[in-house]
Amino acid sequence: MSLLYRQIADHYLIALRDGTLAADTRLPSVRRLMRDHDVSLSTALQVCRHLEDLGWLQARPRSGYFVQRPRRASLPPVSEAPPAPPQPADYVGIHERLSSILARGQARPTPVNLALAVGPPELYPAAALSRSMQQVLRRQPLLLTTMTRRHGHPALKAALARRALDRGIHASADDILVTFGCTQAMNLALRAVAEPGDTVAVESPSFYGMLQILEGMGLRALEIPTSPRTGLSVDALAFALQRDAEEADPARSRIRAVMCMPTLHNPLGCVMPDAEKERLVRLCEAHDVALIEDDTYADMGSPGTQFRAAKSWCRSGHVIYCHSLNKNLAPGLRLGWILPGRWQARVDMLKYAQTRFSEDLSQMAAAEFLASPGWERHLNQMRETLKRQRERYVDGVARHFPEGTRLNPPEGGMLLWIELPEGVSGDAMFDAALEAGIKIAPGSMFSNAPRFDRFIRLACGWPYTPQVDAAMRWLGERVRSMMA
Amino acid sequence: MSLLYRQIADHYLIALRDGTLAADTRLPSVRRLMRDHDVSLSTALQVCRHLEDLGWLQARPRSGYFVQRPRRASLPPVSEAPPAPPQPADYVGIHERLSSILARGQARPTPVNLALAVGPPELYPAAALSRSMQQVLRRQPLLLTTMTRRHGHPALKAALARRALDRGIHASADDILVTFGCTQAMNLALRAVAEPGDTVAVESPSFYGMLQILEGMGLRALEIPTSPRTGLSVDALAFALQRDAEEADPARSRIRAVMCMPTLHNPLGCVMPDAEKERLVRLCEAHDVALIEDDTYADMGSPGTQFRAAKSWCRSGHVIYCHSLNKNLAPGLRLGWILPGRWQARVDMLKYAQTRFSEDLSQMAAAEFLASPGWERHLNQMRETLKRQRERYVDGVARHFPEGTRLNPPEGGMLLWIELPEGVSGDAMFDAALEAGIKIAPGSMFSNAPRFDRFIRLACGWPYTPQVDAAMRWLGERVRSMMA
Repeated sequence: MSLLYRQIADHYLIALRDGTLAADTRLPSVRRLMRDHDVSLSTALQVCRHLEDLGWLQARPRSGYFVQRPRRASLPPVSEAPPAPPQPADYVGIHERLSSILARGQARPTPVNLALAVGPPELYPAAALSRSMQQVLRRQPLLLTTMTRRHGHPALKAALARRALDRGIHASADDILVTFGCTQAMNLALRAVAEPGDTVAVESPSFYGMLQILEGMGLRALEIPTSPRTGLSVDALAFALQRDAEEADPARSRIRAVMCMPTLHNPLGCVMPDAEKERLVRLCEAHDVALIEDDTYADMGSPGTQFRAAKSWCRSGHVIYCHSLNKNLAPGLRLGWILPGRWQARVDMLKYAQTRFSEDLSQMAAAEFLASPGWERHLNQMRETLKRQRERYVDGVARHFPEGTRLNPPEGGMLLWIELPEGVSGDAMFDAALEAGIKIAPGSMFSNAPRFDRFIRLACGWPYTPQVDAAMRWLGERVRSMMA
Repeated sequence: MSLLYRQIADHYLIALRDGTLAADTRLPSVRRLMRDHDVSLSTALQVCRHLEDLGWLQARPRSGYFVQRPRRASLPPVSEAPPAPPQPADYVGIHERLSSILARGQARPTPVNLALAVGPPELYPAAALSRSMQQVLRRQPLLLTTMTRRHGHPALKAALARRALDRGIHASADDILVTFGCTQAMNLALRAVAEPGDTVAVESPSFYGMLQILEGMGLRALEIPTSPRTGLSVDALAFALQRDAEEADPARSRIRAVMCMPTLHNPLGCVMPDAEKERLVRLCEAHDVALIEDDTYADMGSPGTQFRAAKSWCRSGHVIYCHSLNKNLAPGLRLGWILPGRWQARVDMLKYAQTRFSEDLSQMAAAEFLASPGWERHLNQMRETLKRQRERYVDGVARHFPEGTRLNPPEGGMLLWIELPEGVSGDAMFDAALEAGIKIAPGSMFSNAPRFDRFIRLACGWPYTPQVDAAMRWLGERVRSMMA
């Protein structure tokens, strides 16, 4: 997997960001790029398209690529977290807050749901999967009454190993365990490496599902500062691990794992630079700490982008890779998978003791689709669709929300992380929106501490309809009225 | 649910066992039964059929029912456990032993598998389930790409609530959570009530899956003497709970739960008498301890039998009921369910944090089948088949195994628990059988202590073929040769 184009694009991004390449000037021609960087035509074109996707270039017919300030410039970026040392690790106590939010959300009909971190059914290859299942059922009349296999179906595991390669991971089918969703994969990973009372370093903010898992297992979370542009602060983590190693008191809780979403983070939508991903892996290896990588959204970058997984830099088995087909293939299936690295035997035992095996039918249908040309086609369509929608949603926020609102257009996925103007509470917005039939996710769900109470997360996986636009307008008005 | 017929049958069983009703004498006529016990014709007939199923009666055309010694009499019963006080609770450390057994079992081809506690695919309604799935897929083209529901599919939960009634349990669909198999149900139950380091009372012997769950969660097992005829000794448990309550040292691990399989126990195959089930529930209530009831095999009694669940005596919510459709409906599906009683909110949270929701398709197909007349038909056929097979397997053991072998014909299910003659090791038998291409389960799998090393468990869910008979002969010969 060549990521040469990203290296070259990064080179130009610096010049674009600092203004060396000013607006309305012409980017060096594709031919020039090929010569300067000694790359093929296709790589040079990838560089241009990537910068175009990020909003920095505009293709003008017969004239080449011209620099523009990205549209995102209409909204200032989200504040960087203060570079303060991490707060002490604490047991996660988020359940009641979350339950209350989820229960309130379920109690009311919400015609506009902007909290759902999954695409609409039509975004996914329903017909192909359904056809495949029906064929399997006809071909294997006793499938449903035959005991399922340990570890997962061989065909699915082979297809997943091929998909891991897209992330730069060299894995064999035997290294893979099929799980009930990414959620179970992360549960297994944590249970394999940590005991109740132990500490786990997490991003701040981080996906509330991770925090729930920590709480359910009686673990402490140490929230590490995380940039809305470049993800987890490896410096801050290094500092925390160093202090942990120097700690004299053996009774003190030790950091056993780092849980991280380096690619298309939920809720931030950012991607850690490759160099940082590699540093992160090396750091965990040096401290003999497990790195649990949640790669759920990795397939949802802009068309043509490829993201390397942190796991791809790992030779020691310290990275436990968790992924799922729930967001990128079929929200109705519970198919996750895990590459447990050096904890394979223990994860295998825990998986067996927790839930036994997955059903064959969905595994076979998913395997068939992943190995077919339909997979790449679906992926491209999904990426195009999501990119268009992200732009329209970002545009909607820019048009309807008042000055003081901040947002980094995400590099992929289907989530917007929005910083509200001074004095506006995400929780208050959640309650008010619910009254108006609009569901959003308040920032307070994404931390064990009251750190993101001025944030909301909006999902943009569903089409930007006039109804959504009206909801955005309503939300913007409401934010404005709360600023007083 | 009337269990009157069982009470009446129990009355006659005493007379049959102690010889008051001697062999070849005639049982009082059905009319006489109706009059003496003031019951309907159908109840009186149920009494006779039940005694016939147990092997104590023989129906002679136009003459009525005659007493016979059950065929089982050819094998003496398994030794009752000594009525000793329970051993101290200990952390479960069975994983390595089990892994080694399972790995050795998988490494060799075994043409005859007598270790599989599940029926053959043909025992189950594969065609109906498959048809139902195909209909659902045609009716709901977007099902596979639509997010699944929290708690489980309403139609399945409604059907399961109806099935719970067959066990004497009054539950509404809302009380039910659908899980990934009974294994996840038991995991959730334990995690809801116990913390690592706590103690859980279990039967001795008990299903190795339970012991694995305890080990995976860092719990201690307190093995309670369990009779091969009447199940868990409630007296011994009462003694253990009493001592636990009196314990002055607060640092000592407390008994948080009792895990139990009161109906058709794995591996014993016995059923606790109703009075004992009720005592067990009252005892747990009095000590404010959770009773986790695994009812997996309850549908597999002889035709016409109905077993009440311990849960049916519980009004306080102390009993957590776990069941599955894996053994009785479709071994290829991972559909379990749980009635979490007073721990509903916590189990719900844990389930969400562990694996999210189950897939809709299998739930819908199972729901349709459970609500159809096909369910009762399937149940009756399965019970008939299993009863016939149990008899043939028991007969096989009686014919081929040497004197000194002991066995209680199970009251249902598909498992035989066999006590080998003095000096013969179950582990040695396992190894030897494996060499010969025969897989069996050694007794050592069923306890944390080396208590059942002279036992083996043979599954009898698959047809008794000439190949199986040859394997039985081989096993019997081998036991004989090891007695020397």
